[in-house]
Amino acid sequence: MFRFAVLGTGRIGDMHAKIIDSLGDAEVTWCYDIDIDRAKITAESVSAKFTNDISEVFKANDFDAVLIASLTNTHVELILKSAECGKPILCEKPIDVDINKVELCKKELLKYNVPIQIGFNRRFDPSHKYVKDSVQNGKIGDLELLVITSRDPGPPPPRQILEACGGLFRDTTIHDFDMARYILKDEPTEIFAMASNLVDPIFAELNDFDTAMIVMKTQSGSMCHINNSRRTNYGYDQRVEAFGKDGMVQSNNLRPKEISIYNDKATDQQDLLLWFFIERYKEAYQAEIVDFIENIKNNDKPSVTFEDGRRALILANTAYESLEAGKAIDVKY
Amino acid sequence: MFRFAVLGTGRIGDMHAKIIDSLGDAEVTWCYDIDIDRAKITAESVSAKFTNDISEVFKANDFDAVLIASLTNTHVELILKSAECGKPILCEKPIDVDINKVELCKKELLKYNVPIQIGFNRRFDPSHKYVKDSVQNGKIGDLELLVITSRDPGPPPPRQILEACGGLFRDTTIHDFDMARYILKDEPTEIFAMASNLVDPIFAELNDFDTAMIVMKTQSGSMCHINNSRRTNYGYDQRVEAFGKDGMVQSNNLRPKEISIYNDKATDQQDLLLWFFIERYKEAYQAEIVDFIENIKNNDKPSVTFEDGRRALILANTAYESLEAGKAIDVKY
Amino acid sequence: MFRFAVLGTGRIGDMHAKIIDSLGDAEVTWCYDIDIDRAKITAESVSAKFTNDISEVFKANDFDAVLIASLTNTHVELILKSAECGKPILCEKPIDVDINKVELCKKELLKYNVPIQIGFNRRFDPSHKYVKDSVQNGKIGDLELLVITSRDPGPPPPRQILEACGGLFRDTTIHDFDMARYILKDEPTEIFAMASNLVDPIFAELNDFDTAMIVMKTQSGSMCHINNSRRTNYGYDQRVEAFGKDGMVQSNNLRPKEISIYNDKATDQQDLLLWFFIERYKEAYQAEIVDFIENIKNNDKPSVTFEDGRRALILANTAYESLEAGKAIDVKY
Amino acid sequence: MFRFAVLGTGRIGDMHAKIIDSLGDAEVTWCYDIDIDRAKITAESVSAKFTNDISEVFKANDFDAVLIASLTNTHVELILKSAECGKPILCEKPIDVDINKVELCKKELLKYNVPIQIGFNRRFDPSHKYVKDSVQNGKIGDLELLVITSRDPGPPPPRQILEACGGLFRDTTIHDFDMARYILKDEPTEIFAMASNLVDPIFAELNDFDTAMIVMKTQSGSMCHINNSRRTNYGYDQRVEAFGKDGMVQSNNLRPKEISIYNDKATDQQDLLLWFFIERYKEAYQAEIVDFIENIKNNDKPSVTFEDGRRALILANTAYESLEAGKAIDVKY
Repeated sequence: MFRFAVLGTGRIGDMHAKIIDSLGDAEVTWCYDIDIDRAKITAESVSAKFTNDISEVFKANDFDAVLIASLTNTHVELILKSAECGKPILCEKPIDVDINKVELCKKELLKYNVPIQIGFNRRFDPSHKYVKDSVQNGKIGDLELLVITSRDPGPPPPRQILEACGGLFRDTTIHDFDMARYILKDEPTEIFAMASNLVDPIFAELNDFDTAMIVMKTQSGSMCHINNSRRTNYGYDQRVEAFGKDGMVQSNNLRPKEISIYNDKATDQQDLLLWFFIERYKEAYQAEIVDFIENIKNNDKPSVTFEDGRRALILANTAYESLEAGKAIDVKY
Repeated sequence: MFRFAVLGTGRIGDMHAKIIDSLGDAEVTWCYDIDIDRAKITAESVSAKFTNDISEVFKANDFDAVLIASLTNTHVELILKSAECGKPILCEKPIDVDINKVELCKKELLKYNVPIQIGFNRRFDPSHKYVKDSVQNGKIGDLELLVITSRDPGPPPPRQILEACGGLFRDTTIHDFDMARYILKDEPTEIFAMASNLVDPIFAELNDFDTAMIVMKTQSGSMCHINNSRRTNYGYDQRVEAFGKDGMVQSNNLRPKEISIYNDKATDQQDLLLWFFIERYKEAYQAEIVDFIENIKNNDKPSVTFEDGRRALILANTAYESLEAGKAIDVKY
Repeated sequence: MFRFAVLGTGRIGDMHAKIIDSLGDAEVTWCYDIDIDRAKITAESVSAKFTNDISEVFKANDFDAVLIASLTNTHVELILKSAECGKPILCEKPIDVDINKVELCKKELLKYNVPIQIGFNRRFDPSHKYVKDSVQNGKIGDLELLVITSRDPGPPPPRQILEACGGLFRDTTIHDFDMARYILKDEPTEIFAMASNLVDPIFAELNDFDTAMIVMKTQSGSMCHINNSRRTNYGYDQRVEAFGKDGMVQSNNLRPKEISIYNDKATDQQDLLLWFFIERYKEAYQAEIVDFIENIKNNDKPSVTFEDGRRALILANTAYESLEAGKAIDVKY
Repeated sequence: MFRFAVLGTGRIGDMHAKIIDSLGDAEVTWCYDIDIDRAKITAESVSAKFTNDISEVFKANDFDAVLIASLTNTHVELILKSAECGKPILCEKPIDVDINKVELCKKELLKYNVPIQIGFNRRFDPSHKYVKDSVQNGKIGDLELLVITSRDPGPPPPRQILEACGGLFRDTTIHDFDMARYILKDEPTEIFAMASNLVDPIFAELNDFDTAMIVMKTQSGSMCHINNSRRTNYGYDQRVEAFGKDGMVQSNNLRPKEISIYNDKATDQQDLLLWFFIERYKEAYQAEIVDFIENIKNNDKPSVTFEDGRRALILANTAYESLEAGKAIDVKY
């Protein structure tokens, strides 16, 4: 049995704990959360111990890895604590919204030889992964254009989440930046961003945006477009399209049912899309943990590195820089 | 210029005349109809002469072929008259609804060496033809199952048309019987039919049916299912699916626009289907005439023979026999 | 915790045991199989006791229901034993391939007031269920035509399974007969079947068929077509199409990924279908058990009754009768 | 009969002439081309007179409008000549690749009160038009994101065409700029362009690009992305996607056949896309001319104005400016 301490048992932590529990060969031994009731609820559903005192977890030491899903601004502290104790780390994205803290963390981590994986779960989605593989194995020839559509179903998240999330690019688009880096054959070197407030006044109040279009270019000349919205009325719109010399491959949306309705209004009407990330990426979240465990067991490098987390954040920051400057900005990793 | 005399200028005849007129190298020289006004309307739109006296047409003799689109019960007479005059014939389906008249006609035609083609236009639809070709060239291996969906948009046609049409199987399903014969590698030898009255009381009044399911079997054991309805509310439902050892090929429905609508009710909502045969088989009707002209010019055998027309009618008749007997009937060609 | 004794731990029993184990509020306490090794393997993966002595299970009596997934010819015996002990029963289809044993079992069951559900898992597939609901709530008007496509991926199952399975109609089509009864608004009263041997000589050797087309009619005149093949090369082809006065609804195939490939050979190329029933109906198998547990807990009638199992078998038998007689046969329930 | 003089009978002019000829109520009276042989070929196929002396056409004066499809750098001259003669004008895009000539032409045209329409034929495509209508009538709420995919099938056009075409943005993307302006509710005010040479060295040789990504923003904050490539191997990729508060509507690609192939490689494989603009926009080209004639007859303003042509060119020019500056440029109309 591969044992996890789950640190942070909000919505995402709770989901991770249950996924771990459902795997045949893994289990949750500890649930930690600053809110003891929240820790307890998750712990009971997976037969684990619980606490709101993090030191208790590390003292017990009866776990093989940590899964960090606490508030973003506590990630770095928990990463370093876990590294100090020599525990492999699976940490939710983003590492932090503050690049300085991330750089510091990077330096600190050099002291320890602890595997760390960042939770870019979409890399483990079978359809997105197929696009990546098609590019890598030359199925569509050299990649030339990459189009990523990524729109969240509305309404907006609660204000307190928005306040702490670091803004659209660091909270949401960061997934798309990682997807771009995952699929592109070389790093984005130039980025231009446009953004608007069209969805809800709260985003403007928070000095943030709710709707965006981004273009990026790599050294080799391939280009990537990302478009985001904080609201759809038809579900979680998650598409990736890669175009190259020898063809195109698309990763399409998923639905809970596969039905078609024909009537005097329209034909081939399909179900709404899977509503949001927990439903849409259910399989990916599971594959992510299975992959993490396997790599740890085999002493292999994690599939998504700290550096991947750092670079995605740098793209997000550079996007904000572009927004302000109204021009394309060279990316400095 | 390849010159046609169009005999019968109702809805179908008028359509044929206009198609001929739009071809670069063909023209209509005569429009004949028992209703002189009807003949005139079509004639004027294609710059042809018109008459309600058939002998006038044959006396003029300034045409290379006839296209017969008159009332079904006048087909045989016009076929024989044209054959007598040595004019190649393109005749709308069915040859006649009375097999005895068809057999007689067959015998008479032996006297003349005149090419005759029956108007099974669906053979010229590019999508259906692709299914036929896939079967023929082995793309899906030996054909095992053939499923034909063929449903007319409602409401029912006018009573007088229904009264003369020979019933559902001889009027409508006859197209599907021909499609089956076109695609199957050997002739249907056994047929079973079920039918109901679910659409409109008029069909029962006329001792006919409006909804049907048929199964057929060939010597080699491949099977074919046809289902029909006299009414849809979403357009003309015309699908063909061929299944074999090495795969499946489907000919799908057509739409006037290629759009997808996403909202909070449904996703990927498509346009209604092309409404009925004149829209749906527009391209096929044109290809049919082009093909006919080419064969005549090259002294090749027509693509759809009198015998094809006869056999489709025999299948329709055998289907009625099966309906009454409640059992599968061996087909005798 | 709702406790199951799983009787029979072959491929299906093993799958059921694991599904039960993965539910939050249910567990497997016993695994029984005539092959003790097989019982052990499953038992260990779900932390249950195991035995090849059925009496041991009933003696222990530490379970709330049985799930019967043993060889078909042992179903009736295990059903009656369980009923005797007052244990609710979830039994795989078919009840038995011999209608006489089923009738006897029906009579015996009258002595006990024990809930029994037959494993027609496809009723719990969200897409098929949507078709059923659409028919029931009038979304497509009165149902007129129902088309069920049901083709297994090849190659054929092992000879010993085929020998015991009761033939195509009792083993495979029985699912489609149940699907027809599930969706149709009234019972099929007439059935006609055609069948061929096109896939593999083994089916003919066993006096069975591998390819079939069936049509059925109900009292109200609605009709149903089923087509089956024992082999596809593109995955598990499972479609249901219901057509009525006010439209059509289709339940379509499922794929493991949602991708589209465009190149110089073809466009919008999709993934192969989910390969077979364990993948395709994974969600349905789970929903089936959840539904069973819920009904037992609430003292509600099971969703799929013994009578449903009996009637599906009668349709299969009548289909064989039709095959031999070459005519439509009235169904006698 | 509405009579056209077709000025310029290369590939596009020839196509227009034939479309006019196929309409019931229009005809071509003159075909003019600097290459007399080319003029003759088209003229003979539509029974028109021909010449390589433009003054002969205007002297004859037996036409109701001109259709200008000559080399781009002759458009302005022919426009002004026709205007002088009081003839309504349907002129292919772009007006000219030199904005100074366009501005001059604009000024000159003020002297005459002659209707002029620019050949942005895509506005007349039923699927694209549906997107426009959906935006306009509020079907998807306020438009927020517009994504235009527009990729030409390869290989690149002949060098001499490329040399005169004004570059990717003025030659090809100009259609997409017009499509954006057609659908967006307010004018693009800001534009950013990225471009690469990935397809063929010839484009770099000509100081041009073959692959591009563009983003634009309007006053109201809605955004538009365009991506272009000079080469696909699967046909003419022409998609428009409009996203708003109340949903999304897409205009999808068209194919010559509607087929699906299933085998052990892939499922639901579709036909290649219609290969290029003459096939893809056949219906649009015809609708464009019908619309033009109707407006002229009714003394209505043309649907696509000179100003539309001018503004699309300004967007193309601004895109080039952005490319060079590496920043977003404000659009000055």
